[in-house]
Amino acid sequence: MSARIFPTAQDAEHAFYEALERCDLEGMMAVWSEDDEIVCVHPAGARLTGQDQVRESWARIFAAGPRARLSIEQQVAISGMMLAVHSVYERFIIPEAKPEAQPAPIVATNVYLRTAAGWRMIVHHASPAPAQPQATPHESGPKILH
Amino acid sequence: MSARIFPTAQDAEHAFYEALERCDLEGMMAVWSEDDEIVCVHPAGARLTGQDQVRESWARIFAAGPRARLSIEQQVAISGMMLAVHSVYERFIIPEAKPEAQPAPIVATNVYLRTAAGWRMIVHHASPAPAQPQATPHESGPKILH
Repeated sequence: MSARIFPTAQDAEHAFYEALERCDLEGMMAVWSEDDEIVCVHPAGARLTGQDQVRESWARIFAAGPRARLSIEQQVAISGMMLAVHSVYERFIIPEAKPEAQPAPIVATNVYLRTAAGWRMIVHHASPAPAQPQATPHESGPKILH
Repeated sequence: MSARIFPTAQDAEHAFYEALERCDLEGMMAVWSEDDEIVCVHPAGARLTGQDQVRESWARIFAAGPRARLSIEQQVAISGMMLAVHSVYERFIIPEAKPEAQPAPIVATNVYLRTAAGWRMIVHHASPAPAQPQATPHESGPKILH
């Protein structure tokens, strides 16, 4: 589907959120594993599995075009040889909206798999979080298991 | 905290849901990694990190005692050497309630880490799903990466 190679899970995550901010469907799907064993849960949504469901959902979400800037915050990263798990807060910032009218943050769990073609996303689980996330006491660097 | 050893991620998952159904706080915390790099998102909740926040949240949830049976359905499992990721639907069934009054299903992403003391949970991300989950076309067995 794409010749893009992500040497690290972090590279894949950057590309994922860049595509999400730009509403770039091809850029988005280039991040996902080409395997059909992929899982995507959009905020308040059902679980989607497989390339077709995941691609169709992003096409629908992106149809309106970019409307917000996106800030990724408070990452917790757990990295193995083959799998990496990142937990982040996604904050969508609508430039023309007042602070109190900004959307609630989203908490996301992202799982990446090391494939023959570099690191790819296999799970994205996003859900709305309360407006004021609790402080995370552990702002240490990523945990490497190997 | 506990001498329980879970030889597989699936064993840890069984113990997790058994503790959840029984509102068994010690059984629940025996499943979690003793590492402070743990992440828990309850349905519609903020992200909790670390042993203290996670334990305190389960204590609060369990305070009312068991009220529902729990059915775990449509598991998708991706397993590496050190990390395993399971996606499931959690269905809470209140025995005295009518079918139309049953709670909406929950979709959960569970991540397990192979530690020196067996497999332990490191991430639980749960969020409410629409009442009718879409059929998953891929009901194959777990994917083993190694």
